Amino acid sequence: MIPCPISDRTAPWDVLPAANRAVMEGLDYFIVENTRTARRFLSKAGIARPIDTLEFRELNEHTAAGREVEELVAPLLAGRSAGVISEAGVPGVADPGALVVEACHRRGIRVVPLVGPSSILLALMASGLNGQSFAFNGYLPVKPPERAQAIRRLERRAQSEGQAQLFIETPYRNAKLLEQLLQVLAPATRLTVAMEITAPDEFISTHTVDEWRRGQRPDLQKHPAIFIVG
Amino acid sequence: MIPCPISDRTAPWDVLPAANRAVMEGLDYFIVENTRTARRFLSKAGIARPIDTLEFRELNEHTAAGREVEELVAPLLAGRSAGVISEAGVPGVADPGALVVEACHRRGIRVVPLVGPSSILLALMASGLNGQSFAFNGYLPVKPPERAQAIRRLERRAQSEGQAQLFIETPYRNAKLLEQLLQVLAPATRLTVAMEITAPDEFISTHTVDEWRRGQRPDLQKHPAIFIVG
Repeated sequence: MIPCPISDRTAPWDVLPAANRAVMEGLDYFIVENTRTARRFLSKAGIARPIDTLEFRELNEHTAAGREVEELVAPLLAGRSAGVISEAGVPGVADPGALVVEACHRRGIRVVPLVGPSSILLALMASGLNGQSFAFNGYLPVKPPERAQAIRRLERRAQSEGQAQLFIETPYRNAKLLEQLLQVLAPATRLTVAMEITAPDEFISTHTVDEWRRGQRPDLQKHPAIFIVG
Repeated sequence: MIPCPISDRTAPWDVLPAANRAVMEGLDYFIVENTRTARRFLSKAGIARPIDTLEFRELNEHTAAGREVEELVAPLLAGRSAGVISEAGVPGVADPGALVVEACHRRGIRVVPLVGPSSILLALMASGLNGQSFAFNGYLPVKPPERAQAIRRLERRAQSEGQAQLFIETPYRNAKLLEQLLQVLAPATRLTVAMEITAPDEFISTHTVDEWRRGQRPDLQKHPAIFIVG
């Protein structure tokens, strides 16, 4: 499980331990969310092998569980090793990477996670919200009424269980989501907005909803962001 | 927010990006969970400043929210920077570090999370369980009847919401917890046991409860571990 940077504007070895390089250079087979970005990552990381000699196969939201995943794992049964690379950040979290890991455990194939940046974890670390109990909920529903319901459900859980609730949105809908959060959440509820994590314009801020309403809002449009209610 | 290794037997720069060094070397004030282990970490990391010239103040489970935390943050109001270091892994997650972060956000003091190892995140990455929806629940209750109830509650949530449920135990109680998990959980429920993450004897395995019951169990006694039900 080979992490890559979260941001295009971050040098790989600024956010990855140097020890990851030896693992990456030992592999010639990669199961990746997106071949183009994975090749670009390995190239920017300056690995010794020519990128053209490496084999890439895609595992993404179009991959069906079952036969397609079996085919990805087949070379491992013959003793080959594979590197799993996500579109951004750590594989197996907030991406479809778990499908291939699950197939490995069923066959007794060892899975080794390497250290790297996770926007979820970094946002939580810097949020000041409850790091002893938290949940990542992926994407909220797209339609405003269902989304309002989901926001209220997460707020109730944050209050009744003290569990910080993390979620994400596609960047071009972030500004709208923030607006709806400030409409729907109670004034005293705390909200973290974490944007462009690890990038030069990283922004991470936690305030009550009331403070967010009265203060200046960050320009989230088209910037990847994590939201936390706690 | 300065991560340190999870395992004593791991060299710091095998699990931390080299870029963390410049941040660490720029600081002379550290808010730490445990002064002894923080000093040892900085010394093993080979930072340039003599460790004796650095100031350490503790933030741990004995620290009261309120005045004690205010005192830790006071130097930051005067323009000084602080590094927050946990006992192991990333600060602010599964430790009391969030208290000082919360105080910083209230005062508009910028909080920057650095990349490093988190046993929670690494276990999840390598589990094959749902990385698109997951919750970390900290410690379960100690008494067996309450613990059985908590296990059943987490299993129900994993099933009804498809949300992977992570939790931990103090190492000397790990073997007992695994035994109880195998008694209480349904045979088809999947269980990940992740032990000694990033250490030379790292063990991460996911099976159904039925498979765990029939197979060999890892010797968890006194080894730090993460459990995931999914």
